[in-house]
Amino acid sequence: MPSNAVNPDLQREREKASFNTQEFTYWWLGGKEKYEAKKKLEKLFLNDPELKDELPISYMSPKELYEHSVRKAVIIAKKLRELRADGEDDVDTYTALFGGALGSALIKEGNPMMLHFVMFVPTIMGQGTVEQQIEWLTKAWDCNILGTYAQTELGHGTFLRGLETRAEYDATTQEFVLNTPTISAYKWWPGGMGHTANHAIVVAQLYTKGVFRGLAPFIVQLRDLETHMPMQGIDVGDIGPKIGMKSVNNGYLGLKNVRVPLNNMLMKNQQVLPDGTYVAPKNSVLTYGTMMFVRVALIRDLSQTLAKASTIAMRYSAVRRQSPIDPNKPEPQIIEHTTQQLKVFPQIAKAIIFKITGEHIWNMFNNVSGELEQGNMDRLPEMHALSCCLKAITSADSAAAVEVCRLSCGGHGYMDCSNFPTIYGMTTAVCTYEGENTVMLLQTARYLVKVYAQALSGEPLVPTVQYISDYIKNREFGAFDCTLEQIVHAFQFVAANKVRIAYERMEKHRRQGHEPETAANLVGIELTQAADLHGRAFLAQTAYSGLNELIRQVSPALAAVFQTILELYLLDACLGRMGDLLRFINLTDGDVSKLELRLAECLKRLRPNAVALVDSFDVHDRVLDSALGAADGRVYERIFESVKKNPMNKEPVNKTFHQYLKPFMKANL
Amino acid sequence: MPSNAVNPDLQREREKASFNTQEFTYWWLGGKEKYEAKKKLEKLFLNDPELKDELPISYMSPKELYEHSVRKAVIIAKKLRELRADGEDDVDTYTALFGGALGSALIKEGNPMMLHFVMFVPTIMGQGTVEQQIEWLTKAWDCNILGTYAQTELGHGTFLRGLETRAEYDATTQEFVLNTPTISAYKWWPGGMGHTANHAIVVAQLYTKGVFRGLAPFIVQLRDLETHMPMQGIDVGDIGPKIGMKSVNNGYLGLKNVRVPLNNMLMKNQQVLPDGTYVAPKNSVLTYGTMMFVRVALIRDLSQTLAKASTIAMRYSAVRRQSPIDPNKPEPQIIEHTTQQLKVFPQIAKAIIFKITGEHIWNMFNNVSGELEQGNMDRLPEMHALSCCLKAITSADSAAAVEVCRLSCGGHGYMDCSNFPTIYGMTTAVCTYEGENTVMLLQTARYLVKVYAQALSGEPLVPTVQYISDYIKNREFGAFDCTLEQIVHAFQFVAANKVRIAYERMEKHRRQGHEPETAANLVGIELTQAADLHGRAFLAQTAYSGLNELIRQVSPALAAVFQTILELYLLDACLGRMGDLLRFINLTDGDVSKLELRLAECLKRLRPNAVALVDSFDVHDRVLDSALGAADGRVYERIFESVKKNPMNKEPVNKTFHQYLKPFMKANL
Repeated sequence: MPSNAVNPDLQREREKASFNTQEFTYWWLGGKEKYEAKKKLEKLFLNDPELKDELPISYMSPKELYEHSVRKAVIIAKKLRELRADGEDDVDTYTALFGGALGSALIKEGNPMMLHFVMFVPTIMGQGTVEQQIEWLTKAWDCNILGTYAQTELGHGTFLRGLETRAEYDATTQEFVLNTPTISAYKWWPGGMGHTANHAIVVAQLYTKGVFRGLAPFIVQLRDLETHMPMQGIDVGDIGPKIGMKSVNNGYLGLKNVRVPLNNMLMKNQQVLPDGTYVAPKNSVLTYGTMMFVRVALIRDLSQTLAKASTIAMRYSAVRRQSPIDPNKPEPQIIEHTTQQLKVFPQIAKAIIFKITGEHIWNMFNNVSGELEQGNMDRLPEMHALSCCLKAITSADSAAAVEVCRLSCGGHGYMDCSNFPTIYGMTTAVCTYEGENTVMLLQTARYLVKVYAQALSGEPLVPTVQYISDYIKNREFGAFDCTLEQIVHAFQFVAANKVRIAYERMEKHRRQGHEPETAANLVGIELTQAADLHGRAFLAQTAYSGLNELIRQVSPALAAVFQTILELYLLDACLGRMGDLLRFINLTDGDVSKLELRLAECLKRLRPNAVALVDSFDVHDRVLDSALGAADGRVYERIFESVKKNPMNKEPVNKTFHQYLKPFMKANL
Repeated sequence: MPSNAVNPDLQREREKASFNTQEFTYWWLGGKEKYEAKKKLEKLFLNDPELKDELPISYMSPKELYEHSVRKAVIIAKKLRELRADGEDDVDTYTALFGGALGSALIKEGNPMMLHFVMFVPTIMGQGTVEQQIEWLTKAWDCNILGTYAQTELGHGTFLRGLETRAEYDATTQEFVLNTPTISAYKWWPGGMGHTANHAIVVAQLYTKGVFRGLAPFIVQLRDLETHMPMQGIDVGDIGPKIGMKSVNNGYLGLKNVRVPLNNMLMKNQQVLPDGTYVAPKNSVLTYGTMMFVRVALIRDLSQTLAKASTIAMRYSAVRRQSPIDPNKPEPQIIEHTTQQLKVFPQIAKAIIFKITGEHIWNMFNNVSGELEQGNMDRLPEMHALSCCLKAITSADSAAAVEVCRLSCGGHGYMDCSNFPTIYGMTTAVCTYEGENTVMLLQTARYLVKVYAQALSGEPLVPTVQYISDYIKNREFGAFDCTLEQIVHAFQFVAANKVRIAYERMEKHRRQGHEPETAANLVGIELTQAADLHGRAFLAQTAYSGLNELIRQVSPALAAVFQTILELYLLDACLGRMGDLLRFINLTDGDVSKLELRLAECLKRLRPNAVALVDSFDVHDRVLDSALGAADGRVYERIFESVKKNPMNKEPVNKTFHQYLKPFMKANL
């Protein structure tokens, strides 16, 4: 095959498409304008020869990788500085460069300067007073200082009140004295903290006048601006290799009597006066905002991850030929196997559903934020509960989906040159950071049982839990007719039942004399299941209404594709939860068979458009960075090219032959 | 805490145990004698200072890691040679050194000489004539030559008939001419083939007198014995980094008119005479033996993997304190959270069940092998079908279990120093090698639908599928009484139903005019589900009978623990398959609730013995190689120690500060 040709199997797939990929891509990216902005940004960064890797990073040691990544991070930051100077940076630019898209083509295992841009600067903006913003933001935006955000400790994660790091106010010098009194109090995990940042926002337990006041953020200088040597009392370094995020330079930080001026505490929400008087925050819920913001943003990022993983698996499945179906014919493209279709197609559908859900909840979040600023907190608990369970479900499902895609590529998915190992490492991390998934589900569940009690006493409920009221009014599901609308309803009905079970079992424990918290732990399993179903019901509902709205807006050809995607998503979701459905709803074996056969029908219908769909995600080859998934489908040639870059293959004989192998082999002759 | 102290939380857990851990350990390892042999072997290898790593391997580049691993592989092979000379090596020695146990403490990402011992030597033994064994085996045992086994190609995996590598016999010179005619024909994946081995058994399509004869194995010299340079026509190298098995030196091999003498074809089963006459094998099923052997052995290995992963998660869960249950008390050990118990305890149970199943099927395999040698092939298809689906289920479940254990350790499981990344890499590989899991399930399913047709026509069935006959005779399950025996029966009943559905839908497609193979593909999803349920029914049955037998043999204290393990395993398994159970069996919501509450009860009952159970697995600290899982529970201290070894932390300031960061930060001042 000539080196610029497209694999003919892949080409044939493209010609089968029944819809206009450009129409899909514009929708996927948010319109023609955003599409063009994306292309422009890609050109600016991807055409820079200094940002291309000759040697794939998998061949480097962690230290080499870090040094390589700092070099590139600085080039990226310089370009950003220029864009900013020209007023050409916007939210999308930062998202592209520090999320899983363009940025991953440049520093695929994570940018060591990321936390400067996504946490250090935003925290000063969100929690600093106007004076503090004036003092710190210019320096930060211009990168005269480089910051990170230090909250999690070696012994303390999701439960913030357990943090051990202390900041005691010394009114005599008007300084805070910061300490990490034990090993487990060491700050742990902040990106860039190892050797990159010279400042950190350190979250610590605040004491003034000897009295504990709660958590507060402090700007702490970690390293000297001229020499980069750690400041006095600072013990800082890199925490070592991990599954992924290998170049993020996650660090540790010990503090021993480190003094910072009074003004280094970010004081927008709470204040310490020079004499040590503490002024409590007016509104303790404001900090929820940032956490919700991050979780909501994660859902949108995960849809990009699924687009990436399913693109690789889909293109490979169209090129790879293996295991005959008809023994008289050559081995078919593996996508001909229905079992392969069931692996890959639902992941394509999930990418689309997660995007729609992500945008929906993003809009909800913006409305709630607006209401919050006007002092209206009515929808905050609902929004918080939703963002928690959706973060948990979409991250767990995405990580699982990446592995399904990888395994669908057989052994070749196991090689780094497939890029699946990196994608999985980056994705599974989301299950833990920004709130560990089980803790997230328990937070949602706590809201749901509260809501259930309200519904029982006849109180009206907010929209996203309205289905619980409906259930309490009518506990019969009625006959199952297999429509998509009814599948959505079935998810809600099951969710309501799961909430009821958690509530009733918890009440039973309470009647037996357990405190509410102990009772909640005794029904922990039931609570997580209820929260999980709540999130899945929301996903089903959003998929249904979101796609139906889209179907009305797009061309008939694309509408037909969206219809299949919706059907596939809902059928796959409900067949995967059949235990819950059958428990509470009267489905017959015949109903289940009907759903199964319809799913098979959907796979068949999606088949001719599958490659075109992943093409429409418009993931750049450099972002895919996969020998299996490149747009030209030259899979074997690209695997081969990647192998030829292996430094071990540059010398025909490795020195260990003469050092160890030969003496050993000859020893017994 | 003093550096030799045991974490008091962990110590307290040990004191709670109600059974004698020594009794369990003896059973787990196969008796006191085996226990002592294990300790002796561990001492021999683990006390050798040359086999200890000062620098954790995560800090090395792939090339450094390879060189480091060859050095150690040679030391191990030398010790093996000595053991062998003293007649002190046995099967257990090789299993320990090249499986996931002792060997993983020495070369955790895989021994580059492994395939020499586990494939090269055994293949010569199994497929060479007596003369060939005399010629090659001494050299191989003494490691005067180092071999590997080359079957899989870049474009061809599980479907062997698709292999492209050709061996054409040239009667004029009495040689075979071997070629890999395309890129996709390159041999790909063999361990040690990159730069270590100098010989390979190459599986190729045999042609004599211009006629295609089938697959045959050839011994091919890859590298010169003196210089290690690749022989003429040989293109060989390392395929590059992967998720795991990072030091196995998986290689590629291209052959261009490579000539080997007639006698280099292994001729025990089939022969080529000097004039090119081909003598076909008497019995084509004999090669099944090796594949079954390997798959059966994998099941036992996976039980060790689960023991390792659950030990780490369990000990960490006893030491880590996080998220209050009672708000008036300090943060509890995380194992107090019922959600955490549901993550970790079932994995402990699976380790035990997989061991019991592994041994049961190992004995079955030995019986069938004995029968085979006497020409009796009656139980071969049954055995083949069972080994395929069990390989698929236990590998998929084990990989999932490792991730559950890892995620149960929160962010710290993500660090290499937890050892989870390596354990996952090694475990998920099993889903693909020795037969890709979906292909495995389809092979089992093909057997099951055949058996179903036999049962329909009244033919008697062999023991492991007898339940299908029973189902055909009586299609009513009757009332569900929630006993463990009935859960086993329920799994069989569901499996029979799934086989029926696959069979009936396939028949329907055939009546509509599809060829059998096309029909089979159209019901591919149903077939894999049937095979999966068949395997799970076998696991449930084996767990039930195996543990009940054990319970009669051990002390009452240990019997009580085994009873809980059995209950936990079966309840967890059936609650995880509730969709299937509810579809075919008339369970009420009340029945499901009863099962759920009983599972909660089991978790509670296992709680005081959980740490003692993982202690009883007797996994050496060096094998665990985990800061989170060491026997002393000094989690934070060990994480900290591992971080201090990071080469990046040996210098306070990385050179990239002066090279890149400082000029950039100062540029805008």
